[in-house]
Amino acid sequence: MSYAAPITDMRFALEACANLWSLRDRYPDLDEDLLAAILEGAGALAAETLAPLNRTGDKARVSLANDAVTAAPGFREAYEAFKAGGWQGLAADPVYGGQGLPRAVALAVMETVHAANMSFGLLPMLTLGAIEAIEQHGAPDQKQLYLEKLISGEWSGTMNLTEPQAGSDVGALTTKATPQADGAYAITGQKIFITWGEHDLAPNIIHLVLARIEGAPVGSKGISLFIVPKFRDADGSRNAVRCIGLEEKMGIHASPTCTMAFEGATGWLIGAENKGLAAMFTMMNAARLNVGMEGVAVAEAAYQKALAYAKERKQGGALIIEHPDVRRMLLTARAKIQAGRAICYACAVAADGGDKAMEDLLTPIAKSWCTDLGVEAASLGVQVHGGMGFVEEGGAAQFYRDARITPIYEGTNGIQAIDLYGRKLLGDRGHTMGRFIAEAEVSHVPALKAAAGHLRDATDYMLAAKREDALAGASAYLTLAGDVIGAVLLARGVRAEGADEEQKALFDFYAATVLTRAPAHVAATKAGAAHLYSSALRGFAS
Amino acid sequence: MSYAAPITDMRFALEACANLWSLRDRYPDLDEDLLAAILEGAGALAAETLAPLNRTGDKARVSLANDAVTAAPGFREAYEAFKAGGWQGLAADPVYGGQGLPRAVALAVMETVHAANMSFGLLPMLTLGAIEAIEQHGAPDQKQLYLEKLISGEWSGTMNLTEPQAGSDVGALTTKATPQADGAYAITGQKIFITWGEHDLAPNIIHLVLARIEGAPVGSKGISLFIVPKFRDADGSRNAVRCIGLEEKMGIHASPTCTMAFEGATGWLIGAENKGLAAMFTMMNAARLNVGMEGVAVAEAAYQKALAYAKERKQGGALIIEHPDVRRMLLTARAKIQAGRAICYACAVAADGGDKAMEDLLTPIAKSWCTDLGVEAASLGVQVHGGMGFVEEGGAAQFYRDARITPIYEGTNGIQAIDLYGRKLLGDRGHTMGRFIAEAEVSHVPALKAAAGHLRDATDYMLAAKREDALAGASAYLTLAGDVIGAVLLARGVRAEGADEEQKALFDFYAATVLTRAPAHVAATKAGAAHLYSSALRGFAS
Repeated sequence: MSYAAPITDMRFALEACANLWSLRDRYPDLDEDLLAAILEGAGALAAETLAPLNRTGDKARVSLANDAVTAAPGFREAYEAFKAGGWQGLAADPVYGGQGLPRAVALAVMETVHAANMSFGLLPMLTLGAIEAIEQHGAPDQKQLYLEKLISGEWSGTMNLTEPQAGSDVGALTTKATPQADGAYAITGQKIFITWGEHDLAPNIIHLVLARIEGAPVGSKGISLFIVPKFRDADGSRNAVRCIGLEEKMGIHASPTCTMAFEGATGWLIGAENKGLAAMFTMMNAARLNVGMEGVAVAEAAYQKALAYAKERKQGGALIIEHPDVRRMLLTARAKIQAGRAICYACAVAADGGDKAMEDLLTPIAKSWCTDLGVEAASLGVQVHGGMGFVEEGGAAQFYRDARITPIYEGTNGIQAIDLYGRKLLGDRGHTMGRFIAEAEVSHVPALKAAAGHLRDATDYMLAAKREDALAGASAYLTLAGDVIGAVLLARGVRAEGADEEQKALFDFYAATVLTRAPAHVAATKAGAAHLYSSALRGFAS
Repeated sequence: MSYAAPITDMRFALEACANLWSLRDRYPDLDEDLLAAILEGAGALAAETLAPLNRTGDKARVSLANDAVTAAPGFREAYEAFKAGGWQGLAADPVYGGQGLPRAVALAVMETVHAANMSFGLLPMLTLGAIEAIEQHGAPDQKQLYLEKLISGEWSGTMNLTEPQAGSDVGALTTKATPQADGAYAITGQKIFITWGEHDLAPNIIHLVLARIEGAPVGSKGISLFIVPKFRDADGSRNAVRCIGLEEKMGIHASPTCTMAFEGATGWLIGAENKGLAAMFTMMNAARLNVGMEGVAVAEAAYQKALAYAKERKQGGALIIEHPDVRRMLLTARAKIQAGRAICYACAVAADGGDKAMEDLLTPIAKSWCTDLGVEAASLGVQVHGGMGFVEEGGAAQFYRDARITPIYEGTNGIQAIDLYGRKLLGDRGHTMGRFIAEAEVSHVPALKAAAGHLRDATDYMLAAKREDALAGASAYLTLAGDVIGAVLLARGVRAEGADEEQKALFDFYAATVLTRAPAHVAATKAGAAHLYSSALRGFAS
């Protein structure tokens, strides 16, 4: 089998590290048996239905003809199976057919989907964002119109933010919305990098589109969010939105990345005028956590493939897994995967438990730290394979190519680092970060206790530093925070009575090889902006 | 222009850091003007002829039909230009038409070739290996037959080591050599991963092939090296060697990676019977340094592309190069590139100057540290590009794909780390490494002085540790050694009178952000083997 859901690891991270059962009062219907059944069911779908399409989808890719995108072979049947299992609505509102389970459980399910087939996983992930945006910002009639069909997976959803001239700078967007007599708007403009913007797996696609109402303020204060269905609700007629191009990408070949043209398409305002960015952030935050989960997932898939290869490939008379450097690479991946998994799940548990400050703090860390891990583990997986890692047939190469998008989309990791510093750390003067530091400081594990001191030192620096110096160190600070928070969560798990010896071994290795990097990250955090802006750097002059 | 040879940086690394002019007595014909002319000429060829074929070659790839491999469009003309310039024989023996210049100068020329077009550069790189093997191990008649045509570039060369069942374990090879009445051998077997093993750019291809003479000892002691020309020397008839497959790879698409079938092909023994491995190491060592140079080269190419993008792309009203995190990524790449370049050049200067111990020590470091850098810088280059980095059209993705082979071929980086420890460090009980440590210890730069202490600490550990513990830490030790040696070489350069301010700024940044990682590398070096072999790691049980 090419991928098997690591259910033991997942449950350890979810229950022992991320403290899922702190949610018992809020989710009385969930118990251990149901959790086990859900994870096993999702794991079976991932392993049996989605994983076999990963390499074939990579080769077949998607195609565009006459405004229609055709998915790779087998994806239609796989999506039918996903829909039939009710997986899309796991955490959605039961009023509209959802199952009302914790987002943490839904996230764990998505981990197995992403690991088995990252291209496929993007489709339900985007739909999830649309569901959350409509649940939280939609008017009652909009909920009636869309939620049930999105939650069942009958229709899919998209996020339309990026425009050719405005990547990370959403405030610069120019797509315009012209009010119509019937209360709707005519949406005109072009959006790029729209994931699953057009496809043949669902009869309707619900686009959530950022646009500027004529006369609105410039910049991000003048942006509104619109619902633009591919087929109009009233009469089912085709709306004036179409896919005019597909990107030729390095990876996730089976996921269509569309250029979408809105040519006076009918759209309906969702939420208040000029408050579109807030609504979009609802989708973005969920998506960011999900992308972090993708990072863990692709790391896990790459790790499993490398492990299997190391256990069957001989060199010098021995299996290569007996070589210390091969073990080092595999164990590095595995230990960090478990930490990253705990971070993602803990972020979701915080969201489920209403601990907004914790959710907010962990979101950029989950997104960045875990996607850096995705790239690192995929690269380690290639290395374990040796020459076969560079050959596409081996399969390791695809993970390396696929993983590389995750540090970029849903806000580059650099932007996450700015968010962690500017919004999250400054936002509560380090209070929430201090909860982790305090927990680490009383750890009985010397390496964790020491790392806590380094994180406190770096946090104090970030809070006191001039903005330009803090920004220069923000990425290193995020890495340090992720390293330490990952360890705090793993330590919670291995402290528990009867904790598994394998999990303890992973934590020990993590403490010995990851936490010991803390002083280096502190140095990089404090390196300051002066180096970066030295006038001696002639090549940087613009 | 998509790539311009960074001649100022190259000359600084070559002259000020690697001390090229220590070779003045050995190479009296070389002076500053000639060096400048060579680098400018090579830079022009790279920028004008080779770089424009990089992306087109990636897309067109190579094809195999009826045993014949067709190179990508334009490669034939480019190879003609390379040949006409006399670039192949820069460091070769003047008796056979070479120019007798230092290998360090030839290596700098190859840097520009690799940077402009990594797929192309592999062809002359492999020919260079064949030239060196025949120069050092060939009989007089073999030199007469082959050297002139290889040195002129009329014929190309290959290295045939790897077999399907024997990757890094050369001793397991089974290709057999049967003595013939005329003193030749009939070579029978299959070799994989043979770079430029077949192509249409040269009328003859000289394969250097490892095989086992019938009755020879098992393992690496029974291996001999043979010359197997595609067309036989005596009558020009086609030899029984052919390409039976091309690998579908993640990158270097324009470089044919061939499966070669030897079906009783006529071969001639080069060097002594059963001493093939020693001869092959001549080629391997040259190739390892060249692959390290490739790492620097692809890093430079990726850096230049990212820098250009950052200087033209606006976000939030400003060019993205004004953002601190973007500058951090660019500067990280640039500073490490300059260190890696200095390491490669210093290794070549050591070879030219007859400092065998230094050449031997620096070879695995150049190979591993610089190829890790290639992957890192290519990944940073993708990140600077944002979404455009993941789109093939942007060009950054190709560097990321191409670079990934360099830590694998010519001995994986894990094998280099074992070599650094087992052969180089233990070989002289740390004496040669001690030369760098001693130089760093008296540095006036506090960060370098501190790092020297860490390298001494780690070196003492490696010399005293049990073998399994040392092997567990060997990769981290190599990284530490590379970090510090790179700094020692940069420090030599910036100490020189009138040293350029930009080079000083690069060194300062390197000291602040790279050297400060030394304690983490020491910790990883000393982490020991026990973690890796814990019986609790159930998943690792084979």
